[in-house]
Amino acid sequence: MSDDQIMFTLDESEQVTHWYNIVADLPTPPPPPLHPGTREPVGPDDLAPLFPIELIMQEVTGERYVEIPGPVLDVYKQYRPSPLYRARRWEQKLGTPARIYYKYEGVSPAGSHKTNTAIPQVYYNSLHGIRRLTTETGAGQWGTALSYAAALFDVECEVWQVGASYDTKPQRRTLIEVFGGTVHRSPSRLTESGKAFPEDHPGSLGIAISEAVEVAAQDESSKYALGSVLNHVLLHQTVIGEEALRQLAKAGESSVDLVVGCAGGGSNFAGLAFPFLREKLAGNQDPTILAVEPSSCPTLTRGEYRYDFGDTAGLTPLMKMYTLGHDFVPSPIHAGGLRYHGMAPLVSHAVHEGLIEATALHQSECFEAGLEFARTQGIVAAPESSHALAQARREALAAKESGEEKVIVIGLSGHGLLELGAYDAFLSGRLEDDPLSDDALATALAGVPIV
Amino acid sequence: MSDDQIMFTLDESEQVTHWYNIVADLPTPPPPPLHPGTREPVGPDDLAPLFPIELIMQEVTGERYVEIPGPVLDVYKQYRPSPLYRARRWEQKLGTPARIYYKYEGVSPAGSHKTNTAIPQVYYNSLHGIRRLTTETGAGQWGTALSYAAALFDVECEVWQVGASYDTKPQRRTLIEVFGGTVHRSPSRLTESGKAFPEDHPGSLGIAISEAVEVAAQDESSKYALGSVLNHVLLHQTVIGEEALRQLAKAGESSVDLVVGCAGGGSNFAGLAFPFLREKLAGNQDPTILAVEPSSCPTLTRGEYRYDFGDTAGLTPLMKMYTLGHDFVPSPIHAGGLRYHGMAPLVSHAVHEGLIEATALHQSECFEAGLEFARTQGIVAAPESSHALAQARREALAAKESGEEKVIVIGLSGHGLLELGAYDAFLSGRLEDDPLSDDALATALAGVPIV
Repeated sequence: MSDDQIMFTLDESEQVTHWYNIVADLPTPPPPPLHPGTREPVGPDDLAPLFPIELIMQEVTGERYVEIPGPVLDVYKQYRPSPLYRARRWEQKLGTPARIYYKYEGVSPAGSHKTNTAIPQVYYNSLHGIRRLTTETGAGQWGTALSYAAALFDVECEVWQVGASYDTKPQRRTLIEVFGGTVHRSPSRLTESGKAFPEDHPGSLGIAISEAVEVAAQDESSKYALGSVLNHVLLHQTVIGEEALRQLAKAGESSVDLVVGCAGGGSNFAGLAFPFLREKLAGNQDPTILAVEPSSCPTLTRGEYRYDFGDTAGLTPLMKMYTLGHDFVPSPIHAGGLRYHGMAPLVSHAVHEGLIEATALHQSECFEAGLEFARTQGIVAAPESSHALAQARREALAAKESGEEKVIVIGLSGHGLLELGAYDAFLSGRLEDDPLSDDALATALAGVPIV
Repeated sequence: MSDDQIMFTLDESEQVTHWYNIVADLPTPPPPPLHPGTREPVGPDDLAPLFPIELIMQEVTGERYVEIPGPVLDVYKQYRPSPLYRARRWEQKLGTPARIYYKYEGVSPAGSHKTNTAIPQVYYNSLHGIRRLTTETGAGQWGTALSYAAALFDVECEVWQVGASYDTKPQRRTLIEVFGGTVHRSPSRLTESGKAFPEDHPGSLGIAISEAVEVAAQDESSKYALGSVLNHVLLHQTVIGEEALRQLAKAGESSVDLVVGCAGGGSNFAGLAFPFLREKLAGNQDPTILAVEPSSCPTLTRGEYRYDFGDTAGLTPLMKMYTLGHDFVPSPIHAGGLRYHGMAPLVSHAVHEGLIEATALHQSECFEAGLEFARTQGIVAAPESSHALAQARREALAAKESGEEKVIVIGLSGHGLLELGAYDAFLSGRLEDDPLSDDALATALAGVPIV
């Protein structure tokens, strides 16, 4: 490499061929999910109606590495390896001695990391003759990714988009349709779950999940797909961190000081962080691994580590995780992908064990960092990703104070080109911070079952 | 390379360091621009109030290669070389024996090829202490690119956005502001040119140009910047074709059969085409080089080759070019970047000499090709770029009929993520084709001066 290289890629011979399973290396095993009825540990049979066997096995496996199937690698090639950039112009602007790198998932066809799991999920379903996948989408990133992947494997994709999002983000709906998916405003008139609400109801992720699950359950050739939280989803995302480790080595960085990513359901964060956690547990390097969440939905920093449902209606298995309570409704911040009441059980477990740290930020600081980043790096970050930028900015400025040459790696999960309305709100002074109050937190946690 | 490689990049040692000037190799010299008052050939002195000396020299030079300055290469590195892709999935879908490649400029910070010239234009101005650049923008791509480039060199950027575009495309305005630029709705109250129209007038590119030029002329430390048509703009864009030639060599293609790109003002098209035209003139390969325009603004295919003004008001030099008449107003198709009454003099000259061919397509066929492309390649093309896709699709299907293994290279000038409203209109059946009528053409051409 030359001294001023800013983009690091990989040769074909260096490309990632296996996903990494953190379960194999965790010092203690994560607690199992429990059946919502019996409250006994959930087994593979319980999951069979929802997912194909390959995904179920990935959900429960203890193997360290899972081979990425050839047809999935073929599609990954369209946008992977995603670039690792050195943020030299931003460093100069900040006047920091820190070396800042960012791993950019916005180059994917859907514009975020979500395609990394959408592609294998559709592929495995297609092996079993599944003709249709149903799902929900809130901010729209996941619906976009699944629609794109479905087009490639000739599977239909039906998306229930939260009503308020459907009404205010027509571009998201259009993008899903461009890729061939069908979009329903939720609550729809197509399901019993939807019909329980008035047609003009603003909807919620909980209602949309119920609708998508209901439709999938009615039809042998339909299945449901989930875009975060579960073990197999996090597994697929580890391609991010595996690539980043190889790319950092090419940049001459054999060890880093900080790995930072935003965390909503946890899959983007885990995808980058878990391969670094493996290196940390093996003693090869000792990075601080830091999850950033919004102060209005501070699951890891202010939630409780206990069993709770994944959805509002209480239909999913009970998972041991940091939670704000399954009926918690966060304020309508612009980082829609970070508005989830819980956190992936594997991420929660690692935080509880002290292997991973967490912090929460106000959204205005995140947009300010996003603006600075755009004007130096030329990339408009998704509002979610801007949380990682803001925290990295804090650390880079601290390094400036202390004079330390820290190495910082940021997970930049996606672009914000379909979220420019949020930037407009910030630029025109209409953006407000709305951190979670103690009272609201206590009320929400009171609804969590005692297991 | 492996047999199924789909993305071709370049090593640092192979990167393009010089822009290519087609003037050095044209069999006959292109006719000079004329002063609008004297109607004598325009010299460098006439251009001095508008442009810095380096750009003026590039406008008139006969040198074959112009070295790209180091600080420009440093910024190019952020997104260049842009990828060359083999469209394998689309080929399979079409069932064609043709090998289809596309050179994708949508990876640039502004989402289109426009940054290739915005960066050097701002750089050269910054060398002379210019503090502010003014410009107009219609579809918004050029204003975005100039705003981004200005941020990097600490120059202010002020953009007059055509009123109708300002009102209907708030995301474009926001993106310009995110990069630090200032946006005015045109006609504005800031200029005499603007005040000549009512404040709620929908505006036009002609009015917006007049406003930007007026403001630049009032202030020693301000200059005006243009995003297409002129020789120096086309020169900067040749980095596209130079990279493509090197990337095709890595893909094992030493000669191609068709080079196809959309043409509005001509800079995107020329940027890809001129290096291939050099190879054609040198007898190294013999591609058909084809410009695609919309049937509602068919400059090359139905316009006349004569001297005309570049703007509506008749303030610019007279340029020998294919024109529909400088007061022609095309129907409001979605490919805003292709709604220009004229065509770059260098492209016009090459077409007139029979070196380059042209064709015109209805927009509905373009969106149909764009949809098929998105569902196989994962990229939503700009409405402008979809014109190149549609023509390539025709050629690929013809190759299927004839059984010929043609090699097709497409210029994909940008992404359409900020133009999803256009795709929505197509998907919902609201899109109409509106080819130029003979009567409207005759009327528009009647206004062209006799030189």
